[in-house]
Amino acid sequence: MTEKRIYKPKSIAGFPEWLPEERLVEQKWFDHIRRVFESYGFCNIETPSVEELDVLTAKGEVDKEIYVIERLHKDPDEKKEARLALHFDQTVPMARYVAMNFNELVFPFKRYQMQRVWRGERPQMGRMREFYQCDIDIINVDNLPISFDAEVASVMYEVLEGLNIGKIQLRISNRKIISGFIEDWGLPNGTEILRILDKLEKVGEGQTFSDLEKAASYTGAGGAFTPARILLDLAKIKAPTSEEFKKQFSNLHTIPNTPKLQDGINELCSVLDNLSHLPQGAVVADLSIVRGLDYYTGTVYETQLLDVPEFTGSVCSGGRYDDLAGSYINKHLPGVGISIGFSRLFDVMRQTRPDLLGIGPKSPAHVMMVVPENETDRPIAAEAARTLRKNGNNVEMYHAAKKFGDQLKYASKKNIPFVWIVRDGKHEVKDMTAQTQSAADPKTWKFKA
Amino acid sequence: MTEKRIYKPKSIAGFPEWLPEERLVEQKWFDHIRRVFESYGFCNIETPSVEELDVLTAKGEVDKEIYVIERLHKDPDEKKEARLALHFDQTVPMARYVAMNFNELVFPFKRYQMQRVWRGERPQMGRMREFYQCDIDIINVDNLPISFDAEVASVMYEVLEGLNIGKIQLRISNRKIISGFIEDWGLPNGTEILRILDKLEKVGEGQTFSDLEKAASYTGAGGAFTPARILLDLAKIKAPTSEEFKKQFSNLHTIPNTPKLQDGINELCSVLDNLSHLPQGAVVADLSIVRGLDYYTGTVYETQLLDVPEFTGSVCSGGRYDDLAGSYINKHLPGVGISIGFSRLFDVMRQTRPDLLGIGPKSPAHVMMVVPENETDRPIAAEAARTLRKNGNNVEMYHAAKKFGDQLKYASKKNIPFVWIVRDGKHEVKDMTAQTQSAADPKTWKFKA
Repeated sequence: MTEKRIYKPKSIAGFPEWLPEERLVEQKWFDHIRRVFESYGFCNIETPSVEELDVLTAKGEVDKEIYVIERLHKDPDEKKEARLALHFDQTVPMARYVAMNFNELVFPFKRYQMQRVWRGERPQMGRMREFYQCDIDIINVDNLPISFDAEVASVMYEVLEGLNIGKIQLRISNRKIISGFIEDWGLPNGTEILRILDKLEKVGEGQTFSDLEKAASYTGAGGAFTPARILLDLAKIKAPTSEEFKKQFSNLHTIPNTPKLQDGINELCSVLDNLSHLPQGAVVADLSIVRGLDYYTGTVYETQLLDVPEFTGSVCSGGRYDDLAGSYINKHLPGVGISIGFSRLFDVMRQTRPDLLGIGPKSPAHVMMVVPENETDRPIAAEAARTLRKNGNNVEMYHAAKKFGDQLKYASKKNIPFVWIVRDGKHEVKDMTAQTQSAADPKTWKFKA
Repeated sequence: MTEKRIYKPKSIAGFPEWLPEERLVEQKWFDHIRRVFESYGFCNIETPSVEELDVLTAKGEVDKEIYVIERLHKDPDEKKEARLALHFDQTVPMARYVAMNFNELVFPFKRYQMQRVWRGERPQMGRMREFYQCDIDIINVDNLPISFDAEVASVMYEVLEGLNIGKIQLRISNRKIISGFIEDWGLPNGTEILRILDKLEKVGEGQTFSDLEKAASYTGAGGAFTPARILLDLAKIKAPTSEEFKKQFSNLHTIPNTPKLQDGINELCSVLDNLSHLPQGAVVADLSIVRGLDYYTGTVYETQLLDVPEFTGSVCSGGRYDDLAGSYINKHLPGVGISIGFSRLFDVMRQTRPDLLGIGPKSPAHVMMVVPENETDRPIAAEAARTLRKNGNNVEMYHAAKKFGDQLKYASKKNIPFVWIVRDGKHEVKDMTAQTQSAADPKTWKFKA
């Protein structure tokens, strides 16, 4: 044995994996998220891990790092194929899927997707290179009711609220409002202004103000004018209800009157009104939220974990877009969607709040069946295990006719909550937490969490 | 819109994807499989999609085609990394995982794994290049009780039996039996003989016999001897019970008496005895089953679908191996495992037996909530939807205040079984199959499949 060549494996940076007891909690998270998504009627799709590289880059240069795949051994005579690459998100694959299956789908198409995505980050960045995202989107042909902008937010609030990760705050804005200002004033550096506002929370008011003074200048009827103050005041609006939002908004020094801006206000207020069933403080209109620069056209969302400062940035983000799949099909498909960066959230919680996660059991078993020391009684124990399973219990049969004490030790090492004993035809169940033992009937016994 | 550049996407050969109504059934299959695995106390693990290429090839040349991954844009100054490749099965990653986490795991380690695997097949082969496998394995340190060989078979029978894919037959053998013959007789072409026997069902008795005559020759005390007939008779043994197996076996013309052969017989009989709770015909000892040439050392399994001739070969296979992770750790880790080639099975059933699969609903929704034409009643409908969800119902809210008839049409297009109507404060539910409508209380109503 010592002569054997051993290759000692190392973990690969950016490709996380969990121990069984951690994975058990991760599975519970996925189950919960799926349950909430389905309770709103979202259907699931899965796309392949790869797309043609041309599909991934059809919209133009991609700002995410891409992994391409290649066969290790290529035959010299093989037919040339399209280059394939691992998908870096679930939006591009969904757009391709909707375009390809357009005639088979029922619109509005409400779908959820929970798959791994890959980013070819440089190894030294310490970022995840393979991780799960959980996305919901609603796509329609030509136009999509604004009520869906509230629905996706409501779904994600319910998802996060059920994960036991402390208080959640959904921050919502509408891109049309700030764009309305910028366009009406004819500010030339619109993208730059959005970029500056996006950083407000990070860099603070003073810096933002001076950055805005440089970027935003306006030449109107009355001469040159720099609306840095108004833009900053706008971005500082934080309002839990539509009434409060309207009040704060009307306090702004100057408000252009344009249809786009008015649309944005109406949409934002409608979303807030349709989320009024959520607890106080769960939702806030926050006009500093911008979310990327090109993609979103209306509602935008970010989500803060109020009780987990170790988690920086937004855990769940998204927004409304005008044209999902224009690169692949000649149809106008507006949509609204929101996405949880699942793996980073799980990893931060796993590392900083293992207590909240409930990491413990190393097995899904509810019951460990004791194997009788007398081998002839083994079939009776096996039969009892089968009966218990039929009632929906998870039962691990111990593996050898060892001493009772050894068998108990194994159950407690794995954190299995109950142990079942059949002796002289009598059934007893031992509660490993309470350390009590009592007669029980395998035909009716049912594990309760 | 017509000026836009459109890249019309095509599907990629070997990377299947399903429509929402097919995916819904695929999810049910996964849920069922997971439920059965967990009911026997198997814990789940997931490994990254990639391993270091050196890990995948640590045992030597791999007979599967491998995909390597590469960053599309490499920085010239970046630090050199180990080459990464997508895993081609779940056994090598599990072995690496067990070696790396040896001190954290509780043994016997019972794990299940349901992930995608990748094979870099040539595009013209028509094979899947990305597919799901569902594996269970039990690993122990130094030795592993034979009872587990029956357990994994029992689990897989229960899995397949619940998928509604017709009658299943598990075929079981033990490699020690044939190896016992070959070794005791000193037959030099052991591997070749196994290869010939493996093909018995495919090529028939005549061809197998003449192939054996060429490959198997033996020089003993009494001179040259070709045991082709005995090997063929051995491979033809098919017995549903250990008694029947022993009877047929004892009819062989010559039986060497070696410890290895005796071990094989005892193990096979023990497995058969421990599967006697399964229905008649579910299990058969079939000595023609060999399964690969190097890896397995004892029990081997294959599984036939008796009612789906379109599915050729074995749907679920595996066996016992002596040394799981010897390439990665200096420990002796025997195991037994069995694997379902999930995606091919699902695909064959999807194409040939859509009726059995129950493909239909395009949404997980149990209920569609009608949106009242009167916009002021919308919050009442939304509240009813929330109440129904709290009771565990999946409720899709219709998206616009359209005519009742249009809303009904949408529900039936999506195959949603119930429609809920709130009118003048009264709640009614319409059964879309029975076409009946009756008063109902959202606080107590519960969907039943």
